[in-house]
Amino acid sequence: MSTVAQHQAQRISLPRRPFPLTGGDSLPEVQVAVRTWGHYDANANRGAGNAVLICHALTGDQDPTTWWPGVVGVGRAIDPKLHFIIGQNVLGGCQGTTGPLSIDPASGRPWGLTFPSVQVADMVAVQADLLEQLGVSHLWLVAGGSLGGMQALAWAMLHPGRLEHALVACAPWASPPMAIAWNEIGRQAILLDPDFANGSDPSGQTAGRGLSVARMLAMTTYRSHQDLHQRFGRDMLDSATDPVFARSGPYATELPRTFRFAPHYQVESYLHYQGEKLRRRFDAFSYLYLTAAMDGFDGAQLTVGQLTGPLPRVHVLGVDSDLLYPEPSVREVCLQLGALGYPASYQQLKSASGHDAFLLEGALVGREIDALLQDRTLPAAASLAAAAHGRSAGGR
Amino acid sequence: MSTVAQHQAQRISLPRRPFPLTGGDSLPEVQVAVRTWGHYDANANRGAGNAVLICHALTGDQDPTTWWPGVVGVGRAIDPKLHFIIGQNVLGGCQGTTGPLSIDPASGRPWGLTFPSVQVADMVAVQADLLEQLGVSHLWLVAGGSLGGMQALAWAMLHPGRLEHALVACAPWASPPMAIAWNEIGRQAILLDPDFANGSDPSGQTAGRGLSVARMLAMTTYRSHQDLHQRFGRDMLDSATDPVFARSGPYATELPRTFRFAPHYQVESYLHYQGEKLRRRFDAFSYLYLTAAMDGFDGAQLTVGQLTGPLPRVHVLGVDSDLLYPEPSVREVCLQLGALGYPASYQQLKSASGHDAFLLEGALVGREIDALLQDRTLPAAASLAAAAHGRSAGGR
Repeated sequence: MSTVAQHQAQRISLPRRPFPLTGGDSLPEVQVAVRTWGHYDANANRGAGNAVLICHALTGDQDPTTWWPGVVGVGRAIDPKLHFIIGQNVLGGCQGTTGPLSIDPASGRPWGLTFPSVQVADMVAVQADLLEQLGVSHLWLVAGGSLGGMQALAWAMLHPGRLEHALVACAPWASPPMAIAWNEIGRQAILLDPDFANGSDPSGQTAGRGLSVARMLAMTTYRSHQDLHQRFGRDMLDSATDPVFARSGPYATELPRTFRFAPHYQVESYLHYQGEKLRRRFDAFSYLYLTAAMDGFDGAQLTVGQLTGPLPRVHVLGVDSDLLYPEPSVREVCLQLGALGYPASYQQLKSASGHDAFLLEGALVGREIDALLQDRTLPAAASLAAAAHGRSAGGR
Repeated sequence: MSTVAQHQAQRISLPRRPFPLTGGDSLPEVQVAVRTWGHYDANANRGAGNAVLICHALTGDQDPTTWWPGVVGVGRAIDPKLHFIIGQNVLGGCQGTTGPLSIDPASGRPWGLTFPSVQVADMVAVQADLLEQLGVSHLWLVAGGSLGGMQALAWAMLHPGRLEHALVACAPWASPPMAIAWNEIGRQAILLDPDFANGSDPSGQTAGRGLSVARMLAMTTYRSHQDLHQRFGRDMLDSATDPVFARSGPYATELPRTFRFAPHYQVESYLHYQGEKLRRRFDAFSYLYLTAAMDGFDGAQLTVGQLTGPLPRVHVLGVDSDLLYPEPSVREVCLQLGALGYPASYQQLKSASGHDAFLLEGALVGREIDALLQDRTLPAAASLAAAAHGRSAGGR
């Protein structure tokens, strides 16, 4: 039976005070914004229970039914009628869980840049304590993509005895230097923003144009050349809606008469829209801290000595057009886990959507989760061989 | 005989006043910073002359011996002992040719953001007038990469009767939307920079941190995942040189104790260094105008009615790891020119260096130029077929 009613949303305070962090610092207290669906049945799945933990990506939140509708919901692979679904906001986030905008008890003011550095392992430690508060002793599945996939991988490595399955989508074994570079450029845009004022006033409006520019860059790395070419090509904005457009000259319909830095191409307008949208719903401090956590992610730091007892089955999904985490960096998760003895399988998702395919192709991800939970994915050895040959693994 | 002495550097005023621009505007006057090597011989190469025009990329200048040493110099493919080499700074640049920091005669102050929009076709028009001033009637070769390759392509299409050969390296038939997106993000970083002050004071110090951030992004798109992985991997900065590094905690050597936004990885430090380096030698206004010219580049806008008479031989180079202009967008130059009747050939350069391979692999580019000038590249049809099959063309 469940200790949390269906669709309940709440903030839960963790009993560990102070809460220790991997970097050596600690937080005096941690609260977690959590939302659940369905009812917990500890006896389901031959005693493995029916609890499913959903881990969100960089700008996600505790409601996967909104950002992963193809995967989580009635009739989906993760179904509140079958599963006890736990959504939560990560440590360092800005949707209700303790983060840089939380109040530092010592000063009575928001932490801002004095908030300690957090890592993916800290997010997982918070989730582990949260599960105890929810009365959940064992997980049937942990699933996530990108930063969420890093958390799912960390769960499989740090708590191998506490879960049955992990779905790791579009996450690398270790953040590649190109991804670190793009995160750093986004952080520099935020630090360049006069509105951010070097983070001097975390209680004020901190999500200015810098966060918007950081998001514009991130969005390009979440998609692909092919995706932008198919959706926008070189289409220009309608000159009727762009007052700076030229009305004379041989290329009058193509070129602005003078340079005003207004976007002229549809793809620019799209990115400006995406940047503004994030700026209205997210916080610049959390963006700095969470991107740093992604940079610091390295599976090699997550090994916990000698592995004993049964290991969770891990299914890894990579996208052929992923620009942020190219397929080899994701396939490496399967290769490394296989070498550690995990039953790991790999599946390539063919999509032009790039990194965001794990969100945009929810139906495909859902089918992979179905296969994983029904143990219809290939055994590790076979899938490793398939992965090594770049062929599709996790076959059905 | 040459009208310009060897190694001469000067600024030449063009007689066309005002100078018309494709956007419909005009400039009251245009001066060009030019540098030449060798002596002009109009009778060389069976009357085709020995003049070679070098076109630089976004942040290049009139001295290709410094930025293309593997291609231009004594004993190189473009040799002052054989050729009359013309290097110049593009219209809109900041190395001596008329650009946004030039004085607007009407106001007596620098143009700044009132400088008219310039396109690649305008750069070529300025180069054509410059050649007349130099007494050069015909070009043996026009060569360039990236923005320089766009200029070489525009030369072949706008003045087919005035050149024998064109070498187009790492330039697309039309700027792809992803490249437009990355340029726009760089421009937004500049516009975000308080030092730029919305371009209100073009006579002041305008190249602030915004230009540095724009360069950091550009540099990532000039390289490749593989290149950054091989050069930096996930190497951290030496904690001895990074005061914010942790001294405690399980990952003490890996994680900063608290978050200070100082770069922690070698790849971040490298990008910061590159950004600061450009900031010291370049101007933010020119960066805005020249990136916009790149965005506007579309070969389909450069066709000049019925082509008559002999057409220049065009050799196109693409790099398999080019992130900015993926190989298909560059191969398209060869396919489109072939369809127009040009003798065009294509060669894939295999390199992990990404877009910058045209600069970093100068010896390879030089060998391709040798083959082009000695007509040892494949005929158009054969190379098109090869290109269509993704095989190496322009063979030797």
